[in-house]
Amino acid sequence: MHSETVQLLGEFLGTFVLILLGNGVVSGVVLKKTKATGAGWIAITLGWGFAVMMGVYVSGFMSPAHLNPAVTIAMALIGSFSWSLVIPYIIAQFLGAMVASIIIYLMYLPHYAETDEPADILGTFSTGPAIRHTFSNMVSEIVGTAILVIAILAFGQYDVTKTSGFSPLLVGAVITAIGLSLGSTTGYALNPARDLGPRIMHAILPIKGKGGSDWSYSWIPVVGPIIGAGLGAVLYHAVITFVSK
Amino acid sequence: MHSETVQLLGEFLGTFVLILLGNGVVSGVVLKKTKATGAGWIAITLGWGFAVMMGVYVSGFMSPAHLNPAVTIAMALIGSFSWSLVIPYIIAQFLGAMVASIIIYLMYLPHYAETDEPADILGTFSTGPAIRHTFSNMVSEIVGTAILVIAILAFGQYDVTKTSGFSPLLVGAVITAIGLSLGSTTGYALNPARDLGPRIMHAILPIKGKGGSDWSYSWIPVVGPIIGAGLGAVLYHAVITFVSK
Amino acid sequence: MHSETVQLLGEFLGTFVLILLGNGVVSGVVLKKTKATGAGWIAITLGWGFAVMMGVYVSGFMSPAHLNPAVTIAMALIGSFSWSLVIPYIIAQFLGAMVASIIIYLMYLPHYAETDEPADILGTFSTGPAIRHTFSNMVSEIVGTAILVIAILAFGQYDVTKTSGFSPLLVGAVITAIGLSLGSTTGYALNPARDLGPRIMHAILPIKGKGGSDWSYSWIPVVGPIIGAGLGAVLYHAVITFVSK
Amino acid sequence: MHSETVQLLGEFLGTFVLILLGNGVVSGVVLKKTKATGAGWIAITLGWGFAVMMGVYVSGFMSPAHLNPAVTIAMALIGSFSWSLVIPYIIAQFLGAMVASIIIYLMYLPHYAETDEPADILGTFSTGPAIRHTFSNMVSEIVGTAILVIAILAFGQYDVTKTSGFSPLLVGAVITAIGLSLGSTTGYALNPARDLGPRIMHAILPIKGKGGSDWSYSWIPVVGPIIGAGLGAVLYHAVITFVSK
Repeated sequence: MHSETVQLLGEFLGTFVLILLGNGVVSGVVLKKTKATGAGWIAITLGWGFAVMMGVYVSGFMSPAHLNPAVTIAMALIGSFSWSLVIPYIIAQFLGAMVASIIIYLMYLPHYAETDEPADILGTFSTGPAIRHTFSNMVSEIVGTAILVIAILAFGQYDVTKTSGFSPLLVGAVITAIGLSLGSTTGYALNPARDLGPRIMHAILPIKGKGGSDWSYSWIPVVGPIIGAGLGAVLYHAVITFVSK
Repeated sequence: MHSETVQLLGEFLGTFVLILLGNGVVSGVVLKKTKATGAGWIAITLGWGFAVMMGVYVSGFMSPAHLNPAVTIAMALIGSFSWSLVIPYIIAQFLGAMVASIIIYLMYLPHYAETDEPADILGTFSTGPAIRHTFSNMVSEIVGTAILVIAILAFGQYDVTKTSGFSPLLVGAVITAIGLSLGSTTGYALNPARDLGPRIMHAILPIKGKGGSDWSYSWIPVVGPIIGAGLGAVLYHAVITFVSK
Repeated sequence: MHSETVQLLGEFLGTFVLILLGNGVVSGVVLKKTKATGAGWIAITLGWGFAVMMGVYVSGFMSPAHLNPAVTIAMALIGSFSWSLVIPYIIAQFLGAMVASIIIYLMYLPHYAETDEPADILGTFSTGPAIRHTFSNMVSEIVGTAILVIAILAFGQYDVTKTSGFSPLLVGAVITAIGLSLGSTTGYALNPARDLGPRIMHAILPIKGKGGSDWSYSWIPVVGPIIGAGLGAVLYHAVITFVSK
Repeated sequence: MHSETVQLLGEFLGTFVLILLGNGVVSGVVLKKTKATGAGWIAITLGWGFAVMMGVYVSGFMSPAHLNPAVTIAMALIGSFSWSLVIPYIIAQFLGAMVASIIIYLMYLPHYAETDEPADILGTFSTGPAIRHTFSNMVSEIVGTAILVIAILAFGQYDVTKTSGFSPLLVGAVITAIGLSLGSTTGYALNPARDLGPRIMHAILPIKGKGGSDWSYSWIPVVGPIIGAGLGAVLYHAVITFVSK
């Protein structure tokens, strides 16, 4: 394992790339007059899969590439990660997400100017539900993140080591899978840093006509993923432990 | 090989994930006011490919990951699987499919409320033909499932072991292939547990305005896949045996 | 190398699966009232990539999986394949393609009945140009098939053996690549058995309202691919020979 | 390492295939009356990913497969490539791109004749911004190319050697990722040879109704990628050096 500094650098860089590419594809599809305007749900779900895959590639040789506070907490819960590193990891992940949001803003500057709908502008930073429904929205984020963590733990049961270069591709695949199958209700945050980090930047950045940052919804994509990741990790870790006996 | 309990747990969990993600993508595309509404056939066929791939990943280190009664029966037919385990496997597969249907229902609750068309609601549980035509619908399910089993047997001829982590990706690829090429006539059940399990849940769950469960069609996606899997397995097993001589 | 009988069985089965899935996706997209009607060019190019990939998987452990007379002739031209087997291989490939066309017809029977446009019906069997232009259509088929053969020869330069299970995936990828980039002018036959075999079946099968089989165009997707494959193989084989010196 | 002649042949052939397939997919989508007309941004981003992947496959066993002057310069900057070969490499890359443009022109001849919009015709050769905005367009090309080079350097940290046959697939994936996420503002040139080479051919070729070659924009897709590749390489090389200590 690398030094703590290298690990934190990895988490920062990985989350930076993840949000740069992830919110990049959303910006391209929802902002006006880009070459991808209206490219739809397939573009977004493929784009996010590639985004996470690339985030893992650029950081996976430096850190465990959680790139997600919910995953970091879940790994600590099942004893696979040191609790003492949880807070530093989460700070690195938030910083990566927040810096990436600034780059997206500069890249898409003229397209923000062409976009009137505040919900579309907010959508290039953080998620929002298709239909506001606390119970079902929460179920969506819990189930989606549980499947993410279960898949990550499952990949570890195969002869696919972190260094083989195949593993990040699988992580990208499960993100696209979750996006297509479980993501169309809430926009699948799955990750508090992915949602809250850019939401804070949305509140800070001087975007014309941006509207509110929807703080009343903001707790669901933070609490839901943490519950889902914890639940998925504890249950599936028990399964794997049972199987290995 | 793991104990029978571990195998059955694998078949249950794998089929649960398969149906959760598979019917999840259908729900996102056909129910109203999701972010994926109208995303179309590509979304559905990619989504189902990823769904089966993930079902195999989460269970493949515990069981042979049939996740499909037709595959289980076919493997028993060619002597690759014990007949004594066929019934327990099928029960585990049905249970996985049925529990997954409940989660889908809770996740998409507000979108079911927005969807008026009974056929769309039923479509998020089980398959239905584009045009009702017993002969051609049966041919579709037989041919599709035969190709599925042939592909699975073919993959076993390469240096791709179950533990390598590459094999589940190939199974996902063949599901997307079959969906794109042979699935647009009947919705490619290919799997009695995938179709009948959720159809039973459709009949049981208290969904407003759900309409009938189309029992008159329900036998085709059960009988067709069993015939197709058996036919494909017997013919291709003979080919492989001939080649190996 | 397996016996000639096994090789021919492989070429027959592989081409059967290739055409079943390949013309299957075209049928789903162009025939009326399927669940894929109008799914467009992405569906067709992805579907054909998967079709060839699966054709190679089901036959690659029995034969070199040419599945294409133009590839067979090109391999003989550069000395990688015995001229004495060229005619038997081509017969096996044509038979596979022709039998597959019958299955497609039975599967999509009610959708053929709903489709009035003769060009759409013919399109589920063989290719036709977007704009009839002998020179450019010929250039398209030559260039596309040359790239196919160049890619296949290139893959052989990496540590990807036929038995590794990774190689068929690459062949599928190059087919989708050629479809997306070079296929939209003529429908990328690339393969005389893929085009002429089903065209013969189109002429024979009793399809209501089918119209003519466009014999005046039929020579281009036969001659173009053979020229292209030969040209690509000879040029790139010279490059590889030069590099290996 | 091969002789300089082999390397230059590799860079020529690889860039030829890259532009043939890359501009091929753009031509299919934007020119009129092809089978891909209007297939949209997904077709273009997938097509370009496959194009670069295939360019790397056909050349990666002969040269380092830069296929891009910005990458060549960046690799020299961090000491991974000899400065003395930079100019010959760039010439080979430009020649490959320019020859490919002629083939595209001949293949799509009747479709150029059907296309009236000069911007669409120019788009089949070189990139243009969705909204003309020097600052943001420059940021787009810099960020996109920086991510490309960072990803390439990251792939090198895994057990994926150039000869394994897996590496070109990853390079294709990052191109599709960048296209989806960062490409919709400028059309993601990322590569001076990809943009300026075909632009020169656009100026030379006798295309009816072609309009101007937009020379006022032409410096951005040359300067931006060089700055981005240099920046990405220097920063990430420092990270890797720090991690390896």
